[in-house]
Amino acid sequence: MSLEGFIQDETPTAVVQRREASLGPLAASLRELLDATIRTTVDDEEIRAVRGEVEALVERLRVDQRDGTPGVRFNSEGYAWNWGNAVVGLGNAIAPPLGIVHEAPGRARAEVHLGAAYEGPPGLVHGGVSAMLLDHIMGETAANGFTRITFTGTLTLTYRRGTPLGPLHLEAHIDREEGRKVWVLASIGDVEGPTVEAEGVFIVPAWAG
Amino acid sequence: MSLEGFIQDETPTAVVQRREASLGPLAASLRELLDATIRTTVDDEEIRAVRGEVEALVERLRVDQRDGTPGVRFNSEGYAWNWGNAVVGLGNAIAPPLGIVHEAPGRARAEVHLGAAYEGPPGLVHGGVSAMLLDHIMGETAANGFTRITFTGTLTLTYRRGTPLGPLHLEAHIDREEGRKVWVLASIGDVEGPTVEAEGVFIVPAWAG
Repeated sequence: MSLEGFIQDETPTAVVQRREASLGPLAASLRELLDATIRTTVDDEEIRAVRGEVEALVERLRVDQRDGTPGVRFNSEGYAWNWGNAVVGLGNAIAPPLGIVHEAPGRARAEVHLGAAYEGPPGLVHGGVSAMLLDHIMGETAANGFTRITFTGTLTLTYRRGTPLGPLHLEAHIDREEGRKVWVLASIGDVEGPTVEAEGVFIVPAWAG
Repeated sequence: MSLEGFIQDETPTAVVQRREASLGPLAASLRELLDATIRTTVDDEEIRAVRGEVEALVERLRVDQRDGTPGVRFNSEGYAWNWGNAVVGLGNAIAPPLGIVHEAPGRARAEVHLGAAYEGPPGLVHGGVSAMLLDHIMGETAANGFTRITFTGTLTLTYRRGTPLGPLHLEAHIDREEGRKVWVLASIGDVEGPTVEAEGVFIVPAWAG
């Protein structure tokens, strides 16, 4: 573990936000394209034609690109951006993206709508997707409103019943702390209550203490 | 839980495989488009132009589509397809997709390359992504070569160190069984060994026993 990849980038916040206003909608449209690809019943010839168009778009975007990943960036104005993150990244079409509300230090919640792309058992959210979203909201909660960096130590998930695709609610809070260890409790669920409950131990690395 | 969504579909295997030969490459190209979107540095005007093209492709695919999700389908020839699955779905660009090899009943492994779209901490696989992939390979392992249906009961993940983006190896095996409960041990890691270890209890539902 190191701070490598947490990049101080003095792009002014206004410029960063202008980029977010173009990149965010592109990723949102890509999420639609993922969904349409899963659910389409158009013929094979049309599928191949669409693929050709997708490849042309890949070429256009790759004309100018970073060699590696974008990482996590921040400027001296106190603005941070994390567009590539698999769960909350504005520019990552894999991410729903999860919009996390930090209600108070050590307490967070999120509302999310999961569609066809997140399916595991028929009609249900993939158990691994629930684990992924819980891990993220718990990590951000452990980081206590981004005042420190934490890594997942252990994560224990208890699956109470199937999680239906559609609108879902997540919540997380710090249960207790001891030295560099932070215990977090969390759940994901629907209007009828939690479907998956989680307990995690998060570690504040010695170099970040 | 019910069998709703596990659909008997008497499409001949040859026809299913013809569809796989068009849908699989489209999803593969979409994965490239996701990666290019995360890493591109082309200007905002070009980003907006590409978005317009993506929206046009969404319209083309949605001309003819399923209302719901594709679910899991199987025919009497013994062929099953699960194109929408979030971890192994051939047609789901969120899925790497994980190619799982069932070496023996109750023992499986997979090799996977995770790129920018799976990032959490800079340069590292998102801890939630590791959890997601482990949950899936463990579930398939518990299902014992698809001879039964299982649901995740509990899952405990121990994060040993950061999981680097790049080539990774997963393995899983049944540790023991008791009634309708199946204990599975698994890990994900790189050439230096496991980065995340997992223990899961999977449940064979009473209706599927």
